[in-house]
Amino acid sequence: LQAEIVTIGTELLLGEIVDTNAAWIAQRLATIGLNHYYTTTVGDNLARITEVLRHALARSEVVITTGGLGPTVDDVTREAVAAATERPLVLDESLLEEIACFFARRQAPMTENNRKQACLPQGARVIHNPVGTAPAFAVEHQGHVVISLPGVPHEMKHLMETEVIPYLRERFGLHSVIKSRVLRTCGIGESVIDSKIADLMRLTNPTVGTAAHPGQTDVRITAKAESLEEALALIAPVEAELRARLGDYVYGVDQESLSDVVSRLLAQGGLRLALADMATQGELAQWLAGSAQSAIAFAGATVLSGILSLRVTLDLDEALLAQYGCPSQPVADAAAQAARRLHGADLGLALIGPEDPSAPDAPPVYCSLATAHGVIAAPPRRGRSGPAGRGWLMHLALDLVRRHLLGLPIG
Amino acid sequence: LQAEIVTIGTELLLGEIVDTNAAWIAQRLATIGLNHYYTTTVGDNLARITEVLRHALARSEVVITTGGLGPTVDDVTREAVAAATERPLVLDESLLEEIACFFARRQAPMTENNRKQACLPQGARVIHNPVGTAPAFAVEHQGHVVISLPGVPHEMKHLMETEVIPYLRERFGLHSVIKSRVLRTCGIGESVIDSKIADLMRLTNPTVGTAAHPGQTDVRITAKAESLEEALALIAPVEAELRARLGDYVYGVDQESLSDVVSRLLAQGGLRLALADMATQGELAQWLAGSAQSAIAFAGATVLSGILSLRVTLDLDEALLAQYGCPSQPVADAAAQAARRLHGADLGLALIGPEDPSAPDAPPVYCSLATAHGVIAAPPRRGRSGPAGRGWLMHLALDLVRRHLLGLPIG
Repeated sequence: LQAEIVTIGTELLLGEIVDTNAAWIAQRLATIGLNHYYTTTVGDNLARITEVLRHALARSEVVITTGGLGPTVDDVTREAVAAATERPLVLDESLLEEIACFFARRQAPMTENNRKQACLPQGARVIHNPVGTAPAFAVEHQGHVVISLPGVPHEMKHLMETEVIPYLRERFGLHSVIKSRVLRTCGIGESVIDSKIADLMRLTNPTVGTAAHPGQTDVRITAKAESLEEALALIAPVEAELRARLGDYVYGVDQESLSDVVSRLLAQGGLRLALADMATQGELAQWLAGSAQSAIAFAGATVLSGILSLRVTLDLDEALLAQYGCPSQPVADAAAQAARRLHGADLGLALIGPEDPSAPDAPPVYCSLATAHGVIAAPPRRGRSGPAGRGWLMHLALDLVRRHLLGLPIG
Repeated sequence: LQAEIVTIGTELLLGEIVDTNAAWIAQRLATIGLNHYYTTTVGDNLARITEVLRHALARSEVVITTGGLGPTVDDVTREAVAAATERPLVLDESLLEEIACFFARRQAPMTENNRKQACLPQGARVIHNPVGTAPAFAVEHQGHVVISLPGVPHEMKHLMETEVIPYLRERFGLHSVIKSRVLRTCGIGESVIDSKIADLMRLTNPTVGTAAHPGQTDVRITAKAESLEEALALIAPVEAELRARLGDYVYGVDQESLSDVVSRLLAQGGLRLALADMATQGELAQWLAGSAQSAIAFAGATVLSGILSLRVTLDLDEALLAQYGCPSQPVADAAAQAARRLHGADLGLALIGPEDPSAPDAPPVYCSLATAHGVIAAPPRRGRSGPAGRGWLMHLALDLVRRHLLGLPIG
């Protein structure tokens, strides 16, 4: 049984937007034991999409397409699926009504070309899309199936989880289970982890592998079994051994991010955290505010733009700035206290770095946490520019909060 | 004449690494007028790579592969090209010597499996690789050609520029040029644009197409010509017509984002902008702070967490909050003024929205801009949750600033 993915859109083909859907779908299919061997990207061209779909349907039992379901003349996935499966497009009145309601709810005008979105290949199974205007659908053809999903990632993911995965399990009798457990670590490098767990990385079921991300390394345990219980029983002893070796570097599991963990710890303690950020351009605020319990745990952030901001917005003492300069540990300490005060928070966290952290002789980034009882600091750290550099700093900063809240050693 | 790209590697197929080669090659091929219609990604499997190559060579004159040229057992591109073009692999003695020299220069040991890299399909044209160990090659087959390049981006790019592009120009007599121009719009939906420019979207050279993103729609004009001058001459009148129809909804061109444009306008006016953000969780600050001229234009941001933040951090009048509630226009106006004052900025921009903008009866998001002469507001807008929802709001907010700075009508 094999699956393949067809991503549709000239902007994908030309690399104007980076496709993240195919990888996500591939990983999701793997969890139900459906192997995926090909991904094809094709532009918004009816003949070429049709040709790709014919070829894909001939060799793969399951073909999943993303994109090309919008209302414009460029969007021809519906037409291509109809052509590849040799049937006409027909208007689905109930779907039309659903789309009309979507626009009515948003008080937005529905144009004539939105009607097109209610036309589906004859005999298609409608996959209702409660999170967007593009309805998805599945068409059976000679024992194989093509499933067309919108290209908007959050719509696609919602439909995969709620509709497509259950349908595929049922339709193809996919009952074997591949289960993964991820231990998430920070404050320890991938090569150090590798040297601690090399013997476990040679296991075959479950397998153990590592993946490094900026500031954070995942250790993944993956078991294949006939049932979820059996898979969990394979994973449990290996997880215990890994935890024994990696200790308090493990901050969470599976999809939990460090900001989720810190938000949860803050909420449990009835504490609110404020930020003074001169190193991640507001990304740390976004990360924390986006986590599950942030409504309780996040007290607000001040994103600083240079030394003037420290004086004007945080009201830091000019003499302190003159004496120690910026960035420096005393300035980070004072900024953490100011953030705590300004936002009326229990804890104030400051990340104070140079304007260009990747300059050859740039000073380090300082990270301080102000509490009701004083200020603690992480070891100063050389910054790097770009998203990866910000990833490192955000983990450094939130790990300081985690270690403080759990009473773990720092630095 | 058509080209296609085959990217090879299980880690690409599963999305463990993101492929950037295909997009780069596509853009480079476009500049010499070679149309690229398909990209296929396939894992490290001899039979499947061979099948993909056969299919690609049957429909496209030029097939470019990346990856699978290394020394390990996983690397089977050489074998697959030989199979797809029906010829044996043969050892190239001069290539073997070249590889040996490469290792000698680096004083690194050459292993037995590096010999494999000197084996090429019979009759292949060697493309010498001065920047790595993986030699590339081209094989002609029934008038079509397959060119296999290493997957390491800097090696691939070097070989494309110095060897492959000149070879393709010569081999296929490619003297034409493809040039694109993108008009970037906001404040107008894709379907409204479509209805205004439907006739232009049926042109064949240049072509006109649209692509919608959250809060922003691109209109792309693409011309094919014998020279860059001729391509620009084809684009100019269509661009002028599009601009006449779309008016001040066009905020920029090509890669320019709205935050780039607003930062540039602020810097030109010697103005600094501060933010009070209770709707994008700091993402607006990050976007603005990440644009080219932000060091001049960005004065800092206050990321707010609920009504308490409005009182404590922004020091808003309790009576105002009690009278109008939050979110509301008077509160957004006051927050914009407070942001301006708190950050010592010329302009203060506030986005004030409900905690859950996607709740069925959620109030709208209010956007205000405080200047030295008073406060102006964008029309209140129903928010949506998620990254796309934030994208909409960020464009709404920065378009208010753009329209103010350019003296354009608002709302």
